[in-house]
Amino acid sequence: MTQQAEKSTIVLFSGELDKAIAAFIIANGAAAYEQEVTIFFTFWGLNALRKDQQVPVKKGLLEKMFGWMMPRGAGKLPLSKMNFLGAGPKMIKHVMKKHNALSLPELIELAREQGVKLVACTMTMDLLGLKQEELIDGIEYAGVAAYLGDATEAKVNLFI
Amino acid sequence: MTQQAEKSTIVLFSGELDKAIAAFIIANGAAAYEQEVTIFFTFWGLNALRKDQQVPVKKGLLEKMFGWMMPRGAGKLPLSKMNFLGAGPKMIKHVMKKHNALSLPELIELAREQGVKLVACTMTMDLLGLKQEELIDGIEYAGVAAYLGDATEAKVNLFI
Amino acid sequence: MTQQAEKSTIVLFSGELDKAIAAFIIANGAAAYEQEVTIFFTFWGLNALRKDQQVPVKKGLLEKMFGWMMPRGAGKLPLSKMNFLGAGPKMIKHVMKKHNALSLPELIELAREQGVKLVACTMTMDLLGLKQEELIDGIEYAGVAAYLGDATEAKVNLFI
Repeated sequence: MTQQAEKSTIVLFSGELDKAIAAFIIANGAAAYEQEVTIFFTFWGLNALRKDQQVPVKKGLLEKMFGWMMPRGAGKLPLSKMNFLGAGPKMIKHVMKKHNALSLPELIELAREQGVKLVACTMTMDLLGLKQEELIDGIEYAGVAAYLGDATEAKVNLFI
Repeated sequence: MTQQAEKSTIVLFSGELDKAIAAFIIANGAAAYEQEVTIFFTFWGLNALRKDQQVPVKKGLLEKMFGWMMPRGAGKLPLSKMNFLGAGPKMIKHVMKKHNALSLPELIELAREQGVKLVACTMTMDLLGLKQEELIDGIEYAGVAAYLGDATEAKVNLFI
Repeated sequence: MTQQAEKSTIVLFSGELDKAIAAFIIANGAAAYEQEVTIFFTFWGLNALRKDQQVPVKKGLLEKMFGWMMPRGAGKLPLSKMNFLGAGPKMIKHVMKKHNALSLPELIELAREQGVKLVACTMTMDLLGLKQEELIDGIEYAGVAAYLGDATEAKVNLFI
């Protein structure tokens, strides 16, 4: 990758399966064209980065409640439409498999292999009581200033 | 339109009336300023492009279910807020008419007249089982690579 | 601020507390780096600019209904997830206070102090029957053409 590589950034604010899939398909596409891509995970978007097993960390009651209520990882996200208490995500996963489309965990893995920078928003982590041990490996931690630095240099900036 | 025309792109991911209206108002405004505008319809955004009548095409059961559950065209989209089982969209359409604002079908028609490029995401069409015969005329079909090509050349890129 | 200042724009379409907070954190961050930032409030995003008290203005029945149904100001917005009939926003406000994070009204105040241009979309105001007297002071009023003018000159454009 040369120093003149185009840059793209995506803020993934939403915690839904369909939006996360869209974000990673765009990010992986841009990375395949040699772009430097950053996904900045904030608010509910952080749920896509959670490990699927519970990690023993010390937390206050409110932080524990957030932890219980929010979906634990890419495999558990709901749909933004037609969720039907979890039947919708199963249907979507089924048709994606049928069409040999990558699942969200596979899209995340591909993004890491392609060098897409995955950044967890530290301010939201503080607010929701999420600890680094609870998130998947191979990601970076930063605040809004780092995001703005990347976005100002990028050609394509999306908020999802 | 000269070769140096500014470009803009919008990804319309959402399937709601209010978001689709916002997307088309921005797109038509940019086109009126001689910009080359692309709207890339993906996921639920594709519903805005469906014909309002049922089109006889061969489908599997799951694809038929998606077809039944998703709104059939620009005239049937729900609101993202205050939908009230369909009363909200009627209220919005009523006030838009009262203020002589263009309806969504009229905004789509204007976009086509102004040369806004309407692109249906072929990957989502495969997943949801939507066929070209089921979508309105005068649109193009492409994947994420085509979107990224347009977005990288554009000044304004939005995800709605 | 020099004439060469970088520019950023945000369309705040959504009327939810979490999305409004995200918009203002990004806007205030960019303004702190000497960028010229515009937030264009349209559709439900306008609710963040409403005064919290009722303002006596003349309205039709439908406009009155919109006025009653929509949240009155930054202090009353719901969450996009886990709203739980208003318990969610209280939880978020509680943890934000605990972490000394600025509340939404404080973020709006900071934005005005930093010269972030807050623009209410006049077309939506007409549709929803919102009058200038009902919105907070220190904001501007314009249509989509003004937004497009700003966005075309900006490096970062987000739709939230």
